[in-house]
Amino acid sequence: MGERHLVVGGNAAGMTAASRAKRLVPSLDITIIEASQHISYSICGLPYWLGGRVPRFEDLVYFTPDSLQNERGINARLLTRALEILPARRSVLVEDLRRGEKETLKYDKLLIATGYKPISLDIEGAEAEGVFTVSRIEDGAAIADWLGPGRAKQAVLVGAGYVGLEMAEALRERGVGVTIIEKANGIFPAIDPDMATLLQSELEARGVRVLTGRTVERITTRSDGLVQGVELSGSRYHLPADLVLVDVGVEPRVDLVHGSDIRLGRSGAIAVSDRMETNVPMVYAAGNCAETVNMVTGRPTFAFLGTVAAKQGRVAGENMAGRLSHFRGAVGTTVVKVFGRVAARTGLATEEARREGFHVVDARVEGRFQASYFGGEPGTIKILADSETRRLLGAQIVGSEMACLRIDVLATALAARMTVDEAAQLDLAYAPPVGTLWSPVLTAMNVLMRRLERM
Amino acid sequence: MGERHLVVGGNAAGMTAASRAKRLVPSLDITIIEASQHISYSICGLPYWLGGRVPRFEDLVYFTPDSLQNERGINARLLTRALEILPARRSVLVEDLRRGEKETLKYDKLLIATGYKPISLDIEGAEAEGVFTVSRIEDGAAIADWLGPGRAKQAVLVGAGYVGLEMAEALRERGVGVTIIEKANGIFPAIDPDMATLLQSELEARGVRVLTGRTVERITTRSDGLVQGVELSGSRYHLPADLVLVDVGVEPRVDLVHGSDIRLGRSGAIAVSDRMETNVPMVYAAGNCAETVNMVTGRPTFAFLGTVAAKQGRVAGENMAGRLSHFRGAVGTTVVKVFGRVAARTGLATEEARREGFHVVDARVEGRFQASYFGGEPGTIKILADSETRRLLGAQIVGSEMACLRIDVLATALAARMTVDEAAQLDLAYAPPVGTLWSPVLTAMNVLMRRLERM
Repeated sequence: MGERHLVVGGNAAGMTAASRAKRLVPSLDITIIEASQHISYSICGLPYWLGGRVPRFEDLVYFTPDSLQNERGINARLLTRALEILPARRSVLVEDLRRGEKETLKYDKLLIATGYKPISLDIEGAEAEGVFTVSRIEDGAAIADWLGPGRAKQAVLVGAGYVGLEMAEALRERGVGVTIIEKANGIFPAIDPDMATLLQSELEARGVRVLTGRTVERITTRSDGLVQGVELSGSRYHLPADLVLVDVGVEPRVDLVHGSDIRLGRSGAIAVSDRMETNVPMVYAAGNCAETVNMVTGRPTFAFLGTVAAKQGRVAGENMAGRLSHFRGAVGTTVVKVFGRVAARTGLATEEARREGFHVVDARVEGRFQASYFGGEPGTIKILADSETRRLLGAQIVGSEMACLRIDVLATALAARMTVDEAAQLDLAYAPPVGTLWSPVLTAMNVLMRRLERM
Repeated sequence: MGERHLVVGGNAAGMTAASRAKRLVPSLDITIIEASQHISYSICGLPYWLGGRVPRFEDLVYFTPDSLQNERGINARLLTRALEILPARRSVLVEDLRRGEKETLKYDKLLIATGYKPISLDIEGAEAEGVFTVSRIEDGAAIADWLGPGRAKQAVLVGAGYVGLEMAEALRERGVGVTIIEKANGIFPAIDPDMATLLQSELEARGVRVLTGRTVERITTRSDGLVQGVELSGSRYHLPADLVLVDVGVEPRVDLVHGSDIRLGRSGAIAVSDRMETNVPMVYAAGNCAETVNMVTGRPTFAFLGTVAAKQGRVAGENMAGRLSHFRGAVGTTVVKVFGRVAARTGLATEEARREGFHVVDARVEGRFQASYFGGEPGTIKILADSETRRLLGAQIVGSEMACLRIDVLATALAARMTVDEAAQLDLAYAPPVGTLWSPVLTAMNVLMRRLERM
């Protein structure tokens, strides 16, 4: 038998790491410890199952412990929580959540891949029946159960991030009335307010009520303990609701390392080397519980993206298998579709960039990403650069799918640390069905260069 | 009155240069000399006008001389051919093609932007009525006249490049039978044969007959001089045709500089600095008549792309207006749609890369560029790298539009001279409607890295 690897957490980072390590060194004895009921699922697909596009719940789950063992030779234990890491004894204390039994599992190498967890609302009624967060696939099943066949009529979504926006669409698809309450002055703080407003108008056009600049003071409950509604700050305005979904942010799930010698970074996530090593020998961390270097600022941050988690998992698995492999960092590229409109972003948004000390100059262009006689797919693109170095800092696009796919060009330019001058001459593809002679990406660069000249 | 600028050629490069220079220095007196009947047109839109998607011919033309004068303050003279450059006298001898009169026009600065011209077939019958090439917008009008309402029934396309493929679709849309004859063993030599075959199957599925590895020996004519058909090499096989379209390559249109001191590069196009200066003072060249540095090889080449021409024109215009502006080069990114399938490429294809002395290693992946429950837009991606430096050399994608748009990510990675290791960790956007957790772009990089390990 080969080395024994333990992996705590069985989703993007943990699954990828285990699979990669096992592929490189088939003799490895790898066990995944997972506290929930499922490994290897698509949390991103959840809103589309709730909305009815994904027919079966099982379509969201790629592996069961059986299929993982049969197809990849990796063990997985569900409903098993890791309680404590004992580095001196190279072991982890775990608890079987069904039987309540504890045992100690030995490891030669350990990977912590516990992901993120939702921040909960610290207000009255937050624990009422009918109040949900979404971070694991069973949260979706619980919401579906709760919704039942037409049981819930009115939902309030507290917070308007990725999950909130996609769930708003899913709930509307099921005929549920939706109100979004957002503390900030605009929805979707991942992009600038002047861009987010383009998403908000789409939500409103599809019958979603959006209240910004408001906080929820308390969640009201009926005498039987079920949720009744929410009370907003100031006005004492009461919104009836039979479902409340809370999406007010996420944080690294790092309870397991509290009280241990494993060091957290300033972001609150586990500090790691570019080989995904923690400060404790033989203990690795990857995914949303670990820090990620932001390639624009060069600083470690906390990312909460499956794409980044999977890449870190791959690097962790390679290093655990004895390879030399390095993670270069991320630029924070995301995309979200809300009804008929898509929003994408990469790098830093304006406020983030200012906080990091950059001198932000931007350009915003409304363009066509296709010849008009092919439909002229529309999109608005905003690009940010630093006026001193002329380096690109970030970009945002709101519009059609075809428009928003261009965010990957900007993500690539950010990874290469391009200036606006370099990016303005990118040799992008053109044919009338799929582009325009001057891509709006390049037009935005040209506008940005003119702004820089005037400074 | 300001400086006098002459621009020979009124399409992508010439128009962009004139517009940019005039915008920067409004006092400039700029005149465009154009031998054909139109300036500022979309040759790329021509097949879509012939096929019926673009309703009016005028929709393909952005400016007339009148609108150019009114909107931008730039003069344009149509049907005026530049015959000779006289640098010592800072003047150009031109001929008015309608009146046959010659005159000498003075310049302070001159831009040569004459573009490319099609290579003609040097065989019997090549001048017959009903034989066409496509390089200017009036070629399209002539083909439309010739086709008339149902007059042509059978077309033979000699050569299967961009124009040939798009015209095949346009002619099928008009109910014309189409046979493509290609000398090489596969169509569309801009991509590797194993990728081009995916396009060929689409052509054949839409009723286009494709004969490869065959050359046309002669074009046969009727007694009245009209085209009758083509005779193929070897077999003496005769294909009837009432329209023959020749697309066997293009070359820089540089007749104007023959016999002058203006130097051509080894590619046959005009040699220019990165400021688009020729070797003769005050004479600039831009667009498809001028050389372009290929950013993958670092060497000057001849490009025949409107996108590159427009960017070079912009740089030329800025320098002619007294700015300091540099053209960084191109990577050769193109995309073509043929019926329901799209093909895109960037950088070098396999044979090109080998000729340049690279040690080519490749990976080919069939992937989904979207979650399966959103349709799972399919595409095949092939990536080439150099096994010694691990640098990316080129990429090709054949599939849906959504798949092929990703070529711009690779074009950006090539401009940044990324290695496969760097590109494998690009932070690309994911949401089920527009992507997959592992983009096939990244999967292909991972496959390529595994291949490199085994070498």
